[in-house]
Amino acid sequence: MGRLVMKFGGTSVANIERIQNVARHVKREVDAGHDVAVVVSAMSGKTNELVDWCRAASPMHDAREYDAVVASGEQVTSGLLAIALQALGINARSWQGWQIPILTSEAHASARIAGIDGSEILKRFKERKEVAVIAGFQGIHEATGRITTLGRGGSDTSAVAIAAAIRADRCDIYTDVDGVYTTDPRIVPKAKRMDKVAFEEMLELASQGAKVLQVRSVELGMVQNMPIFVRSSFDKPEDIDPHGTPPGTLICSEEEIVESQVVTGIAFSKDEAQISVRQIEDKPGVAAAIFGPLAEANINVDMIVQNVSEDGKTTDLTFTVPAADYARAKDTITKSKGAIGYARIDTATDVAKVSVIGSGMRSHTGVAAQAFQALADRKINIRAISTSEIKFSVLIDTAYTELAVRTLHTLYGLDRD
Amino acid sequence: MGRLVMKFGGTSVANIERIQNVARHVKREVDAGHDVAVVVSAMSGKTNELVDWCRAASPMHDAREYDAVVASGEQVTSGLLAIALQALGINARSWQGWQIPILTSEAHASARIAGIDGSEILKRFKERKEVAVIAGFQGIHEATGRITTLGRGGSDTSAVAIAAAIRADRCDIYTDVDGVYTTDPRIVPKAKRMDKVAFEEMLELASQGAKVLQVRSVELGMVQNMPIFVRSSFDKPEDIDPHGTPPGTLICSEEEIVESQVVTGIAFSKDEAQISVRQIEDKPGVAAAIFGPLAEANINVDMIVQNVSEDGKTTDLTFTVPAADYARAKDTITKSKGAIGYARIDTATDVAKVSVIGSGMRSHTGVAAQAFQALADRKINIRAISTSEIKFSVLIDTAYTELAVRTLHTLYGLDRD
Repeated sequence: MGRLVMKFGGTSVANIERIQNVARHVKREVDAGHDVAVVVSAMSGKTNELVDWCRAASPMHDAREYDAVVASGEQVTSGLLAIALQALGINARSWQGWQIPILTSEAHASARIAGIDGSEILKRFKERKEVAVIAGFQGIHEATGRITTLGRGGSDTSAVAIAAAIRADRCDIYTDVDGVYTTDPRIVPKAKRMDKVAFEEMLELASQGAKVLQVRSVELGMVQNMPIFVRSSFDKPEDIDPHGTPPGTLICSEEEIVESQVVTGIAFSKDEAQISVRQIEDKPGVAAAIFGPLAEANINVDMIVQNVSEDGKTTDLTFTVPAADYARAKDTITKSKGAIGYARIDTATDVAKVSVIGSGMRSHTGVAAQAFQALADRKINIRAISTSEIKFSVLIDTAYTELAVRTLHTLYGLDRD
Repeated sequence: MGRLVMKFGGTSVANIERIQNVARHVKREVDAGHDVAVVVSAMSGKTNELVDWCRAASPMHDAREYDAVVASGEQVTSGLLAIALQALGINARSWQGWQIPILTSEAHASARIAGIDGSEILKRFKERKEVAVIAGFQGIHEATGRITTLGRGGSDTSAVAIAAAIRADRCDIYTDVDGVYTTDPRIVPKAKRMDKVAFEEMLELASQGAKVLQVRSVELGMVQNMPIFVRSSFDKPEDIDPHGTPPGTLICSEEEIVESQVVTGIAFSKDEAQISVRQIEDKPGVAAAIFGPLAEANINVDMIVQNVSEDGKTTDLTFTVPAADYARAKDTITKSKGAIGYARIDTATDVAKVSVIGSGMRSHTGVAAQAFQALADRKINIRAISTSEIKFSVLIDTAYTELAVRTLHTLYGLDRD
């Protein structure tokens, strides 16, 4: 008998039939003796509709009103799921963010959770075996009493935060895939579902383009040491043995992973653009002159590569931005030419970033070198390289993305047998 | 400079364009110097969608969850209208029922307003000229902290209650018609819009089938002596002189109506069924034996006519029910035959009720007699008659409804010149 948080995303609650399927998943865990809190997203498509309405009402809409509007999507799902659970004979009630309350910062549309009072939910677990059905993605700012939202994908973060608040044994994230894969199975059919992955590795995978979980929820899981289990909501509830080990991926602390691998997964992102600033002076303040204006323009810079100057006077600096921001970024750098002082800029928009992730890199040397050789064997030109403790990324021409990912997937022994 | 409540129903806020039109209506009043609270319904069709989802999730759904789900419709509109108002440069914020708070009874799905704290709204009128955009139809039950709704059409009631709480000068109900008419203009093209109508008369009109306003909102207006002005939301905001007298109908206390008419309006309802219970014993307890089981079966009985017994032993009793309840009502009476003791029952489903309303009836005699003669002249058979202080109703064959309404409309001098 344990305490569980179960989170269901938009596609899992897209219509009444699927909500009833979710109810049967919950019933399975309740029948197995668990105390359960469920966190739900808005029905698939609803949040987009609400966001579109806000934009149509005014492009410069008040984020406080935006939050009041879009938070309604999760409110609907929570009530409907409570109804569906009661129809199965299960004690259940819905909870809005303000009812628990889930206190957040005042940063409307991208609020951070400040604290959750789980006492009433725990009391009802004990007294009535009542399932708490909680609207995800939202909270309340205490001083103003206004509804806040956590930003897109925020329900994952809600789920992990609630799991921590009620000291759950595990936070199950039900989604439209059955776990986290070594890479995108659409690109590499031999991709394997990982049984376990460390928080740090999942963080890198998520921030490098694996869209299974919101990055913030993984960060929170890591800080709170709350195991997150990613599993499929489309499995038939009746086919799952609640006492067995269901298919899925457990995201947990590194210590719990006995057989750690050198490389865990390969992530990639095709929507990159590269800007190289040539012959800048090699002196303090130049990087600030480049990235200051970009930050002010709200452009998210990803890779930054700067080589040691050859002649001690000038050097080149390369960075990448999302393809959508390319034109604005180029424009910003051009306008700052006087302040930066460079000879010319070279740009490329058809570039992709491929990242190799694994906490085993910490203790193994030569991991990246193997990749560079393998890519060279395939005649794939590496435009830039950046590395971190448990990850390295290469920038290549987009056309070679699939080939590079497959090559590296095989190289590091990730292919399914 | 005054204080106004403006209420907009579902068709008036059906899409973003119409919400922006509503915002211009509000701006007109703000520009004229008024402090304004706006009460909004859900976008047309939304409440039905939400209700359908609740029913699909479970036919026996928890009314508390139903309320959490359906109250979201008004939440969305309130946020969107606040955004649209801000886009016009007006200070505005949305208020959910629980934020004000609007305290209600615990009767979920048909809660009654228990109290409204208007102090914060009044403070913001004074300090910031801030328009309060209030989600109609909903409140919160204080002890449980759960969302409640007032039942269908409840936003009218919300508006009048809020108007009373902030001591507004008037409550404007914007709707898809431009006022209250002497009868349905689709039946009688010569029907006139009334400039003023007394609360009591409007109550009778509303309960007799005129669907302009929710009956409870009129009751509340009468108790609180809050003038209600029914007007069109489809008028162009720019065409209206905020200092002039716009087209519409003012519902107010009788004392404010200088030139009171004998008859104010004609209402009718076609969806009636008639059941006559023949030769029941003329003794105490018989009526209870008939209407007790009907009340238990939740059947709403409207007209009840019982004649004085001719022979002192047996009498006939006739009553009407909504056509939708006819079969169940007949079944209920048949099953109670032993307890009631009657010879037979006669029924008719193709019957209509036509009601003549006017507070002038109190002081004028012979008003009904004129009607009976006029209907007889037209060879319209009266099946039953019931009367009250300011109203009388006749039950006739449905086929004659339009003819009867037109005849009475002309008879009492209501035709437009």
